[in-house]
Amino acid sequence: MKRTAFFVSDGTGITAETLGEALLAQFEGVEFDFVRLPYVDTEERARDAVARIDAIAARDGERPIVFDTVIDQRLRQILASSHGAMFDIFSTFLAPLEQAIGAPSTFSVGRVHDPHSGLYHARIEAVHYAMSNDDGASGSDYSKADVILVGVSRSGKTPSCIYLAMQFGVHAANYPITDDDLQSTRLPPALARYQDRLFGLTIDPSRLAEIREQRRPGSRYASLRQCEDEVRQVEAMLRRHHVPHLNSTRMSVEEIATRILMEKRLRGRKG
Amino acid sequence: MKRTAFFVSDGTGITAETLGEALLAQFEGVEFDFVRLPYVDTEERARDAVARIDAIAARDGERPIVFDTVIDQRLRQILASSHGAMFDIFSTFLAPLEQAIGAPSTFSVGRVHDPHSGLYHARIEAVHYAMSNDDGASGSDYSKADVILVGVSRSGKTPSCIYLAMQFGVHAANYPITDDDLQSTRLPPALARYQDRLFGLTIDPSRLAEIREQRRPGSRYASLRQCEDEVRQVEAMLRRHHVPHLNSTRMSVEEIATRILMEKRLRGRKG
Repeated sequence: MKRTAFFVSDGTGITAETLGEALLAQFEGVEFDFVRLPYVDTEERARDAVARIDAIAARDGERPIVFDTVIDQRLRQILASSHGAMFDIFSTFLAPLEQAIGAPSTFSVGRVHDPHSGLYHARIEAVHYAMSNDDGASGSDYSKADVILVGVSRSGKTPSCIYLAMQFGVHAANYPITDDDLQSTRLPPALARYQDRLFGLTIDPSRLAEIREQRRPGSRYASLRQCEDEVRQVEAMLRRHHVPHLNSTRMSVEEIATRILMEKRLRGRKG
Repeated sequence: MKRTAFFVSDGTGITAETLGEALLAQFEGVEFDFVRLPYVDTEERARDAVARIDAIAARDGERPIVFDTVIDQRLRQILASSHGAMFDIFSTFLAPLEQAIGAPSTFSVGRVHDPHSGLYHARIEAVHYAMSNDDGASGSDYSKADVILVGVSRSGKTPSCIYLAMQFGVHAANYPITDDDLQSTRLPPALARYQDRLFGLTIDPSRLAEIREQRRPGSRYASLRQCEDEVRQVEAMLRRHHVPHLNSTRMSVEEIATRILMEKRLRGRKG
């Protein structure tokens, strides 16, 4: 059973897509094709959107599901003339929100991504920070870090740092534990001053070996033996120095980032 | 006028936050404090959430706004006992969606971020790709790029590539145009084979000078004169080689990424 879902917006459509995908994920037996239609901000584009929705309705023999966050009343009326099943996200919530808040809404478009806001600049600045403080890059400036992720190579540090920066504006650096570091019972010298900012990522050795095998097939680096040794030693180091940590094996970056914010009591620049 | 909004979830809370922030952005006269409460997945945590909501209600003398995506009926009942104004996102949409789709929903938690799905792996792989193909890094592998962003230093290429990767699983590389490149009327040699994958980012010289000034105060690199020269020459190069481009000055990464996907007719690994 296959259905098509549209995300229609006068902006980027990312809000409609995020909510729509979360809702449709609750329908496990159904496979969905997703189509995002951003910048539907003129009558002509609204009519184009209707034509695309109706073409899919004719092809599938089923009504497409349409999530929309279009603000303009006229455009929403045009969209409502399609054969899709419409889920009008803003209309659904704005009227009861106006009541709860006791103020009218302004129906301003896209203010959430305002590139001139301080929050937006903080996120972009944090992305640049994460890029230049990745993998113990030379000149890493840990003094500006909100959190420093430590773990073996390919335990998920880099995407987690990038997500923390892009989504939350958090300054996240990372440091790959090397064989040299594991020879000592001390923390690596570069980290010793920042012990309270450390957070460890560990991973099941078998999963780590799979990931590394894709990167360097047949290497010692990717061997299960090597992965087991590294993970065991890193976990011992994290425990010895009381560094909070989690096993990332079955977690997404969204989950890892959320757990780190909770553990380190960080609110993010957005909060 | 200041109000508090809670995003309560049994998962990361990112869906509730994305929708809630977009909705509350429509209330321009009101300032909001945002509080995300993730992993509310036991009765005890639900009661803790109620206590936090009620404490804020007492402090503010106003009902907090509460967006929730908690699936478990019992936990939602506990949350509903709070003094917050509840916006129950899943309940609102799931019943009409079940009708439109003609199938029951499974109320599975958090499947949207399933780290074992192919889509998820594609996104993480794309982030690693973007990191190692940033700023014309040595060994950049443009043959695997879906799109290659070109532009002057600090025109927004890096965060745009990272966003394309993290959100859409698109392989986005970038190449900073140097003074040497501008001496020639040809495309930089590294790019010549991939002309159909190029996309240009330009930026208003005065804004570019501001951004560079923060990075290297008082430098020639940050001078308005230098920025004007570079931008003019890069725009001439983009036009000469018919490379599609946009001016990123007043755009967020979300908007830039969406425009690029449209122009290059990319759907992303998620689509």
